[in-house]
Amino acid sequence: VRRQAHITLVNDIETSALDIADRGVAYGDGVFETMRVVAGKIPLLKWHLDRFSEGVSKLELGSPQTLKRDFKSSVNQALKRFSGDALVKVIVTRGSGGVGYLPPKQTRCSFVVQVFDLPDVSPSYVEGGVSVTLCDYRLAHQPRLAGIKHLNRLDQVLAARELNGQQEGLLFDQQGVLVEGLKSNVLVFKADQILTPSLELCGVRGTLRQYLIDKANLDIEEAKMDASELMEADGIALINSVFGIWPVAKIDGQAFESHQKCETIRQLLNAQLGFK
Amino acid sequence: VRRQAHITLVNDIETSALDIADRGVAYGDGVFETMRVVAGKIPLLKWHLDRFSEGVSKLELGSPQTLKRDFKSSVNQALKRFSGDALVKVIVTRGSGGVGYLPPKQTRCSFVVQVFDLPDVSPSYVEGGVSVTLCDYRLAHQPRLAGIKHLNRLDQVLAARELNGQQEGLLFDQQGVLVEGLKSNVLVFKADQILTPSLELCGVRGTLRQYLIDKANLDIEEAKMDASELMEADGIALINSVFGIWPVAKIDGQAFESHQKCETIRQLLNAQLGFK
Repeated sequence: VRRQAHITLVNDIETSALDIADRGVAYGDGVFETMRVVAGKIPLLKWHLDRFSEGVSKLELGSPQTLKRDFKSSVNQALKRFSGDALVKVIVTRGSGGVGYLPPKQTRCSFVVQVFDLPDVSPSYVEGGVSVTLCDYRLAHQPRLAGIKHLNRLDQVLAARELNGQQEGLLFDQQGVLVEGLKSNVLVFKADQILTPSLELCGVRGTLRQYLIDKANLDIEEAKMDASELMEADGIALINSVFGIWPVAKIDGQAFESHQKCETIRQLLNAQLGFK
Repeated sequence: VRRQAHITLVNDIETSALDIADRGVAYGDGVFETMRVVAGKIPLLKWHLDRFSEGVSKLELGSPQTLKRDFKSSVNQALKRFSGDALVKVIVTRGSGGVGYLPPKQTRCSFVVQVFDLPDVSPSYVEGGVSVTLCDYRLAHQPRLAGIKHLNRLDQVLAARELNGQQEGLLFDQQGVLVEGLKSNVLVFKADQILTPSLELCGVRGTLRQYLIDKANLDIEEAKMDASELMEADGIALINSVFGIWPVAKIDGQAFESHQKCETIRQLLNAQLGFK
């Protein structure tokens, strides 16, 4: 299965080719964002730009202000040619140059923008919940890269091998602490609490997770959980800026009830961000 | 500074463009080898193929036998057009396809081969030794990726920022144990011993390091060393398949004598592999 892009722009030029000397190819030296477009607008744009900006700072790609402006302008170039609902993926690399690993002093970043159809997601995932596996693959702590959506994603590629047809895999760190899903963040419902793993040491800080923390007035708390604590939850949900929220129906065969709070968040995301 | 390639082949076709949908760009989903060519031959080819093969197995890129054959054939295509001394860089990615992180069932790898001039290295590095810094950047343990030369190299890119004009930076893990140089492996001389860090948990297993272990009859031992143990060594050397061996003359200002064993290895590499 390979989705075709409607439009691919590299530095605002229509092409699907990237220079082999680009540091994105050589070292994964860059970041990306995958954004849901509804009727030509990106409801979570502010949060994508915030995370992009954090990536720019952590990787020292250049001035966050300038690069945020270039990011928006590149996305606008692509969306001028394709309005409506879509998925926009933006890859920003450090560009080419430098002596081996050492980056050049002056960076000229490459901006790759691709416009795809929104993925076809079964309504049953939202309504009935999804099947999930606990991955054996363990994430390492690397605070220098934690939180941002960089291009070094071999952890996710290798862990995804464990899905075996299930909709999501949950990743733990080497100490056995829950971190995230392969492509989602995790909300855990326990009594009155909504818990989510901290992402200070590893993992990707999802934009919908941050939106809910900033805007939803839900009192989401960061907490350390191991697998047995997870399995004793009253309910579990997965959140992602493209699909919204999915209740977890099953983890490696054990059934979970959909939690009332999951339905509350679903309604909130429907009202505020237009998720189905 | 950007070196120009004499030849760039992607899947045996002369082009410097890689498809933006390639998983090498999206996720760093692949491996690479950088090989020294002397008079049209690659003295360490066997060791590069061994490490490539380990990378193929760890990333499950396909059949190691088939991919080793394709690797050799791609390199031969490039070397047909450029004989003499050179540096050949081969990037092998999983190719394009798959649903997000999940790789496709059938992989069709991309082979990128680039031929460069050998880097100009000051003879003073070999004779007088190099200046080295101890990097603050810490490597994380990830046994699933340790040893191989994969394309997720943000650790090295970020740590290289600390070089400040010095020739090499030494990397430690989060427990403070010495792992490797940014682009080299480390030999530490203590009394009669030649010690080198283990690379089971992180780091890249250099081909010259493996050659010396396999062929040089030097009794190199893997050992755990922290920074203070390193600084008490009788001598230190850096090894790399492109430059050979460099004595360390200085670490963050502290001087080191060149060790007799370093000179012995230099002569051995000269006789057996043609290093200057």
